[in-house]
Amino acid sequence: MAKRGSKTKQVYYFGKTRTDGDTTQRQLLGGKGANLADMTSIGLPVPPGFTITTQVCADYYANKRKLAQSVLDEIRKNIAILEKETGKRLGDSKDPLLVSVRSGAAVSMPGMMNTILNLGLNDESVIGLANATGNERFAYDAYRRLINMYGDVVMEVDHHYFEEAFSKIKTKYGVKEDTEVPTEGLIELVEAYKKVYKKHTRSNFPHDPVEQLELAVEAVFKSWMVDKAVAYRRIEGITGLAGTAVNVQSMVFGNMGDDSGTGVGFTRNPATGENKFYGEFLVNAQGEDVVAGIRTPQPVAEMPKWKAPNNKTIGRDSFNQLKEIKQKLEKHYKDVQDIEYTIQQGKLYMLQTRTGKRTGAAAVKIACDMVKERLITEKEAVCRVPASALTQLMFPSFDSKAKKDVLTIGLNASPGAAVGKLAFSAEEAVERAGKGESVLLVRNETSPEDVEGMHKAAGILTSTGGRTSHAAVVAVGWGKCCVAGAGEIEVDEKKRTIKVKGRKFTHKDTLSIDGSTGEVMAGAVATVQPKLSGDFGKLMKWADKYRTLKVRTNADSPADSKRAREFGAEGIGLCRTEHMFFEGDRILAMREMILAETEVDRRKALAKLLPYQRKDFEGIFKAMNGLPVTVRLLDPPLHEFLPHDAAGQASVAKVLKVPASKVKSRVTQLHEMNPMLGHRGCRLSVTYPEILQMQVTAITEATINSLKKKVKAIPEIMIPLVGTQAELATLRELAEETIATVKAKKKYTGKLAISVGTMIEIPRAALTADQVAESADFFSFGTNDLTQMTFGYSRDDVNAFMPDYLEQEILTQDPFQSLDATGVGQLVEMGVTKGRATKKGLKCGICGEHGGDPASIDFCHQVGLDYVSCSPFRVPIARLAAAQAALNNGK
Amino acid sequence: MAKRGSKTKQVYYFGKTRTDGDTTQRQLLGGKGANLADMTSIGLPVPPGFTITTQVCADYYANKRKLAQSVLDEIRKNIAILEKETGKRLGDSKDPLLVSVRSGAAVSMPGMMNTILNLGLNDESVIGLANATGNERFAYDAYRRLINMYGDVVMEVDHHYFEEAFSKIKTKYGVKEDTEVPTEGLIELVEAYKKVYKKHTRSNFPHDPVEQLELAVEAVFKSWMVDKAVAYRRIEGITGLAGTAVNVQSMVFGNMGDDSGTGVGFTRNPATGENKFYGEFLVNAQGEDVVAGIRTPQPVAEMPKWKAPNNKTIGRDSFNQLKEIKQKLEKHYKDVQDIEYTIQQGKLYMLQTRTGKRTGAAAVKIACDMVKERLITEKEAVCRVPASALTQLMFPSFDSKAKKDVLTIGLNASPGAAVGKLAFSAEEAVERAGKGESVLLVRNETSPEDVEGMHKAAGILTSTGGRTSHAAVVAVGWGKCCVAGAGEIEVDEKKRTIKVKGRKFTHKDTLSIDGSTGEVMAGAVATVQPKLSGDFGKLMKWADKYRTLKVRTNADSPADSKRAREFGAEGIGLCRTEHMFFEGDRILAMREMILAETEVDRRKALAKLLPYQRKDFEGIFKAMNGLPVTVRLLDPPLHEFLPHDAAGQASVAKVLKVPASKVKSRVTQLHEMNPMLGHRGCRLSVTYPEILQMQVTAITEATINSLKKKVKAIPEIMIPLVGTQAELATLRELAEETIATVKAKKKYTGKLAISVGTMIEIPRAALTADQVAESADFFSFGTNDLTQMTFGYSRDDVNAFMPDYLEQEILTQDPFQSLDATGVGQLVEMGVTKGRATKKGLKCGICGEHGGDPASIDFCHQVGLDYVSCSPFRVPIARLAAAQAALNNGK
Repeated sequence: MAKRGSKTKQVYYFGKTRTDGDTTQRQLLGGKGANLADMTSIGLPVPPGFTITTQVCADYYANKRKLAQSVLDEIRKNIAILEKETGKRLGDSKDPLLVSVRSGAAVSMPGMMNTILNLGLNDESVIGLANATGNERFAYDAYRRLINMYGDVVMEVDHHYFEEAFSKIKTKYGVKEDTEVPTEGLIELVEAYKKVYKKHTRSNFPHDPVEQLELAVEAVFKSWMVDKAVAYRRIEGITGLAGTAVNVQSMVFGNMGDDSGTGVGFTRNPATGENKFYGEFLVNAQGEDVVAGIRTPQPVAEMPKWKAPNNKTIGRDSFNQLKEIKQKLEKHYKDVQDIEYTIQQGKLYMLQTRTGKRTGAAAVKIACDMVKERLITEKEAVCRVPASALTQLMFPSFDSKAKKDVLTIGLNASPGAAVGKLAFSAEEAVERAGKGESVLLVRNETSPEDVEGMHKAAGILTSTGGRTSHAAVVAVGWGKCCVAGAGEIEVDEKKRTIKVKGRKFTHKDTLSIDGSTGEVMAGAVATVQPKLSGDFGKLMKWADKYRTLKVRTNADSPADSKRAREFGAEGIGLCRTEHMFFEGDRILAMREMILAETEVDRRKALAKLLPYQRKDFEGIFKAMNGLPVTVRLLDPPLHEFLPHDAAGQASVAKVLKVPASKVKSRVTQLHEMNPMLGHRGCRLSVTYPEILQMQVTAITEATINSLKKKVKAIPEIMIPLVGTQAELATLRELAEETIATVKAKKKYTGKLAISVGTMIEIPRAALTADQVAESADFFSFGTNDLTQMTFGYSRDDVNAFMPDYLEQEILTQDPFQSLDATGVGQLVEMGVTKGRATKKGLKCGICGEHGGDPASIDFCHQVGLDYVSCSPFRVPIARLAAAQAALNNGK
Repeated sequence: MAKRGSKTKQVYYFGKTRTDGDTTQRQLLGGKGANLADMTSIGLPVPPGFTITTQVCADYYANKRKLAQSVLDEIRKNIAILEKETGKRLGDSKDPLLVSVRSGAAVSMPGMMNTILNLGLNDESVIGLANATGNERFAYDAYRRLINMYGDVVMEVDHHYFEEAFSKIKTKYGVKEDTEVPTEGLIELVEAYKKVYKKHTRSNFPHDPVEQLELAVEAVFKSWMVDKAVAYRRIEGITGLAGTAVNVQSMVFGNMGDDSGTGVGFTRNPATGENKFYGEFLVNAQGEDVVAGIRTPQPVAEMPKWKAPNNKTIGRDSFNQLKEIKQKLEKHYKDVQDIEYTIQQGKLYMLQTRTGKRTGAAAVKIACDMVKERLITEKEAVCRVPASALTQLMFPSFDSKAKKDVLTIGLNASPGAAVGKLAFSAEEAVERAGKGESVLLVRNETSPEDVEGMHKAAGILTSTGGRTSHAAVVAVGWGKCCVAGAGEIEVDEKKRTIKVKGRKFTHKDTLSIDGSTGEVMAGAVATVQPKLSGDFGKLMKWADKYRTLKVRTNADSPADSKRAREFGAEGIGLCRTEHMFFEGDRILAMREMILAETEVDRRKALAKLLPYQRKDFEGIFKAMNGLPVTVRLLDPPLHEFLPHDAAGQASVAKVLKVPASKVKSRVTQLHEMNPMLGHRGCRLSVTYPEILQMQVTAITEATINSLKKKVKAIPEIMIPLVGTQAELATLRELAEETIATVKAKKKYTGKLAISVGTMIEIPRAALTADQVAESADFFSFGTNDLTQMTFGYSRDDVNAFMPDYLEQEILTQDPFQSLDATGVGQLVEMGVTKGRATKKGLKCGICGEHGGDPASIDFCHQVGLDYVSCSPFRVPIARLAAAQAALNNGK
C-alpha cells in the first residue's frame, strides 16, 4: 500500500516549459500521459498540460476515496505553470484557460472511464471565451457541453434529463439538429441545464474552476472501479495496475467552425494491416463526437477535399502533416499508432497516441511489413503478434459459393464471419450465450456497459457508429466479428425486433454478418476454413526458427490428424481411444462387453472391437507417417457407454437380446457419486486387464501392418490416471507381454519400438514422479484433470461458483483456460524435475487443453517440457507462442 | 533381487554340536528358526535341527520356483551333522532319524503355511522305528500320518480320499476311533494310503528320505504364496518380508503312548494378562492335534494330575519344568511367550517359542505387571502395547442388567461382545458384512481358509476347538470377539441352521456372544460402554508423560465432547456444524434457506437457525471449558439437505408451503456431476456470505455468553476447502467484520480471542501453504479429502476397484485407513513447512480420520504437527500412539 502524503512526485508536467515524464513511465503516468510527454519531447504539436499519477489513484482508494492535500497543492502549482505557458488563466473573464480531464491507465481501456471537457467555464469565463474567439455561439455551446458532461460524469445526473431540456429548446426554435440552434437558444439552454443540474444534485453548478477541476479529477479516479471497467479488466485479464492516471490538458477545439475539426485514426489499417493512414474525421466537432459514434464521420482519405471557407488548403495541409506525423510516430514507437487529433482554426494538435489494436490478420501483415521496412527484426516480429490473435485467422469465413440473402451492407468494423440469433441487450446476449446459443448482439449503438454481452456474442451488429466507435475498437481487440453503422437497419430494442427494407426479424431469427465486407445476411450462411499462407507462413517459419518446444496435436481420427499436420503438428500428443467406440456397431460391442458377466464373454465382445481399433490406428499412423502418435488407453468410466434413461436401456436390451432389467441393473451398479474420481482410467485395466490387452493388440497389429506397408508408425502407449508406480509397473508389464504375444503370433521379427508412458494427471503421480518414472518412457501432463484435482473443482460443476470467484477476483483467471502456474504448475514442475532425476532426459509433454493457451505454453517452456499438444486449430497459435516463450525467456 | 547361487550361508544349524543363528536374525531365519536357535543357546531342551533361510525362499521364487543346487548341498551337509549329533540316520532300517519340516516367517502367521511331520519314514525305516521304540503300532501310525500329510500338503491330494480309506479300515475292524485300530489295520492302512497317493499323483510315494525332504521344503516355500497366506498378510498389513524360512528338526513324539503328550500355552493369560501359565495339553497326541482343534484338550492346570501307568510323576514333573521354562523365557525375551512342547516318554522338549499374541486388556495388564516386576521400563511398557489394541478396551460389553436368554456356554476364547445375524461360511460373512450387516460367523471349526470371513464378522462362534485353536488365536490377535468349542451347538453348514437344546436358528436370526464369559445368547443383548481405569489409567499416564503431540477429538455435540474429554481429549479439533442442521425444525429452516430466491429471504431463514447454533456452541464450550474448540463452517453441498425423491420433495413442499415443482427444480439445479469437487465448503460462503455471517454470529454470541457465565470458551473458526489465499483472505475479513459487529451489538468490551484458520484438504492449499498461511492463524489437515484429491479416489466409489488394488498389491494399504506417507504425506509435510516459513510456529493439526490411526500418528509426529484429532473412542489410542511415536523417533 502507498504511503499517504509521501514526498514522491505526484504530478508530471508536459509542454514547452518543461516535460517531466517519458515513454518509460507508463505504469506511473498511464499510457496516455506517458505518450503525451513523449510526443511533446519529439516535437509534435501537443497542447500543454500535466498528468496526475496512477499512484495518486491508488492512494485515493487507500485513503478512503479522498485526495490528499499534497496532491491538491501539486495540481495548483502545475496549473500555475500551465497558465504561464499558455498566457491564459482559469476562469478568466477575458481569454480563459480551458482544460480537458481524461483518464489513462497503463493499459488502454477504451471508453471504460470518464472524460470531462471544457473545464474552466463559468458564467464569467464564458463571456471571456466568446470575446477571445469572437464566437459567442461556440462559447455557449462549450459551456452547455461542460454542464451536461460534468453533471453526467461527476454528479451522476442521468443524461436524458439534459436531452429533454435540449429537445424543448429545439422545439421552441423549430429546429432538428443541435447545430441549428441559434446563440440565444444556447444561452437559454445553459440556464435550463443549470436548473437540471440543481434539481438533480441539490447544489449549484460550481463556478470556481479549481473546484471544478478537483471534483473532475476525483470523478476520473472513481470511474476506475465502476462495474464496466472492472468487467473489462477481468475479461482482458488486466491485473497488477495501481489505477488510472489523470491527464489535465489545455483545451483545443475542433468545433470552432468549419475551419476546425477532429479525427481519430491508425497509422496503418487495423483490420487488414495495409500500410496506409486509416481513420475518420469530422468537421466542426469535438473528439468525443467521433468516438461515441453519434455522428457518422468521413474517411480520412477525404480530408484533402476539405476546403474551409476561410482557408481553402486546410484539408490538404492537415492531411500532409498527418502523414509526416505517422512517419515520425512509427519510427519512434516502431509500431502502429492509434491517434487522436484536433484541428483548431486550421492548426493541427495531437491529443493522444497509443499502440494501435489490430486484428490477427493485420498483426501478421504489419509485423511482416515492418521487418521488410527494417523497422523491426524477425524476432521482434515474432513477439509482436499476440499468439491468441491467430485464432481469428483460423476462424472460418463465409463460403464464397454459398447463396447469400444480403439485407444491407454496414461498415466492416472487425473481420470474421458470425452466425447467430438476435439478442437485443447485453444481458440477453449473456444469458442466451450462457445456455449455449450462438447470438448476435444487435444494438442501435453499443455503450461501454455492453462489454459483457459483446464478449459473449458471436458477433456484433450496430445501426450507427463508425469503424472507430467504441463497439468496433473493442471488437477488433477481441477478434470478434463486428458490422457497425448499418444505417438501413431500424433496431427496436424494446420490441426486440429489427426492420430492414420492409423485412422484420425477431430474437428467433438467425442472421449472418461478415465483418470483412460489412454484409448483413438473412439466415445461416455456410462457412469455409481459412487458408494459411503468405505472411502467415512467413511468420510461422520465423516462429519455428526460434522455438525449442515441439508442438503436437490432440486428434482421434485420420482426418483430424491430417488437418493438424497441415497446420504444422509434429505428432499426436493425445489420441483418445474412447471416441472410437461410439460409432455404429462399435458401441454395441462395447455395451456387450460392459454387460458381460464373465471374462470369457468380455473377451468375446472385445474381439469384435479389435478390428475397428486396428483400422483406426492404421489410418492415424498413415496420416502421421514418421511422426510419434501417443495413444491413450480407455479412460472414461464404463457407464458413459450405456444409456441412462429407460427408453435407451430398453433399446439396448432389445438389440443385445438381454432383459432390460439387466441393462438397468448394470447402469445402477456402475453409477458413481463422483465419476471423475471413480472407476476409470488405468483402474479399468487393473480390474479388466482384457480391455488393455485388446487395445494394445490393436496398436501392435496396426503398427506391424503399417510398417509392412512402409508407413513409419511410431506409437507411444499412454496409460491414463496413474497415481502409483505399482499401477504403471503392473500395466506396463501386461502391455509388454501383449506386444510380445502379437509379435510372436504375427511372426514379426523386425524391431518394434513401442514406448509405454503415462499421463501425469493425478496429484500423487506428480508428487511421486521419481518412482513413477521408473516404469515410464515418457510423461504427458494431463492438466485438465490435474487442475480438477489440485483445485478440487469439478469442471462439470464449476459454473455454480466460478463466476463469483472471477467477479470477486478470488481467481484472476479460470484455471481451466490458463494453467495455474502457482499451484498446478508447481506439480507440473515437480513432475518434470523428479521424473528426470530418475530418468535423465525423460520426454515430457502436456496434453491438457492448456497446451494451446499462450500463457500456459510460456510456462511449459520455462519448466522445460519437450512438447505441447493442442487441438488442430490451435497448432499455429502454439507454434507462435512457443517461439515467443523461447525469445522472452532468453533461450 | 537375490543373487542366485551366491556363497551366502543358506542353512543354519541349531543343536549341541553348534548353533549358528540367534534371536537377532528373525528376518533371515524367521521367528521360529531364530527362537529355536535362541532356546538352544540358553540351554532349553530343544530337539536339534537346522533352518533354511527366508532368502532361500526369495531365491526360490526369483529362480522360477526352483531350489538351487547350492541349497540342496547345504541341506545334505546339515543332515550329516544332525545324524551325527542324534546318532541316527535318515531312512535307517534300525533306528531311523525322523524330522519335521515347518514354515516360519519373520512375522508369525499362525496356521497359514504348511508343516510336514515324521519325514524319513519308508517301508524300511518304519520297521526300524518299530524296533527302536518297541512299538509297532506307533511306527505304522506315524507312517500313515506321513503319507497322508505328505500327499495332502506336498502333492495336493484332497484330504478326504485318505479319510475314506481310513473309514473303510475302521469299518472292517468294527471300531469308531482312530486309536482303536489295531496294528494290522494300520499296516493295511499304509498300503491303502500308498494306493490313494499313487492314484491321485500318478507316482509312487517317494521312498528316498532326502527326496522326501527336498520336496517338503519346496512345499513349504510354495505355501508362502497360497491365497490364504497372501490374504492374511494383507489384512495384517505384513509387508517387506523376503519369504518364509523352513525349519527341519529331529522329531520327538507326543503320541508314543500314555507317558507322552503335547501341549501349547502362553506364559501368561493372553485374554486377561493374568500372570499364570496358561494353555492346554493332550496326552498321547502330536502337536497338530491341539492346534487344529480336532480333539478338545485339557487345561494345563490339570497337568499335575496326569499319571502315566509307567511313570506316576510325569504330570507334576513336566508342569514344574514348564514353570521354570516360563521364568527363563520371560527373563530372556522380556515378554509373554507362546510355546509348543512335546513330552516324549516322560521327557519334555521345547518345539517353539514366540512372542504371545494377546488381547488389548491383556497387553495393558502385562505391560503394567512387567514394569512392577522390573522386567521392562515404563517406556518399554508404553511401546509394548499396540495402540490399536486399545480399541478392544474401548469396545462395549454386555449390560449386566440386560435380560439374557443364554443358550449355552462355550469357551471364552477372545473377549468382547458381539451381536449379529448368523453367517455359515466365510464367503457369506464377507458378502453380508460388505453390505453393512453385522454378522456372526458360525462354524463347526474354523480353518485358515476362513480368515477373510473372520475378519469381516462381528464375532466368531465355533462348536469345537479350544482356546488355542486356530480361530481363537487369530481372533485374539485381532481383538475380535470369539466363543469357541460351544459343543452343545449343532451346526449344519449346508442347511445353514444351528440347533441348540432343541431350538433352531437360521441366517435370519440374531445371536449375542460374550467372548469374556463364553455365553451364547438368543437375540440382541444391550451393551454398555467400558470403564477405563486401573492399569489402563496407569499406562495412559505414562503415555502422556512421553508424548509431545496433543490429542484432540472430533465432536459435534456436548455429549460427544464430554465423553471425549473423559477419554483425555485436549480440545476439539473438528466440530462439524452441518450435523446441527438436521434435527427437527432446523432442517426446515435450512431447507427454507436453500429454497429462498433472494438474499433477504435467505437471511430470514438463517435467522431461524442462529439460536439453535448458538445454543449448540454454548453446550460444547461448556463441555470443553478452557480447551480450544475448532468449529468448521458449513461444508457439504446444499443438495444434501434436500430430499431427492418425489415423495420427500412433496412433503418438504407441503411443510414450507411452496409448490413441489419448486423443490424439484431446486434439487435439479443443485445437482452436481461430482459433488465432492463441487459447490461446497468455503465456496458456499463466497456465493452466500450470509451463511458464514450467521455461523460466525452464532459462534461469537455463544462465546460472549459463555464468558459471561465464567465458561472459558476458546473458539477457533475453521474455513473449509480453501484452495487459494484469496478465498481465505476474503472470508476471514468477512468473519472478522461479523465478530466486530456482534461485539458492538452486544456491547462487549472484553477481549475476544477468536482465531480464524483453515483446513488444508485441497492439494493446492498445501502447495501454496506459504501464501495461505498469511491469512491463517492455524492449519488443520483434512486428510480425508486430501487423500481423495491426491489419489483421485472418490471415497464413495472406491470399492469398485480398491479390493483389486489390495489383492494385486498395487496398494499395500487402504489410504483412507492409514495415511499415505509417500504421496499425501508429502503434501502434509509441504503444508507444514511452507506454512511455518511464513508464520513461525503456525499451529498445525490433523482432523481427518487418520488422526486416530497409529501409523498415521507416527507420521504426524515426524512432520511436527502440534496435535491430532480423532473420534472420541480413539482418543486413548491416539494418546498411546503419540507417546510411541515420540519414543520411537527418539524425542
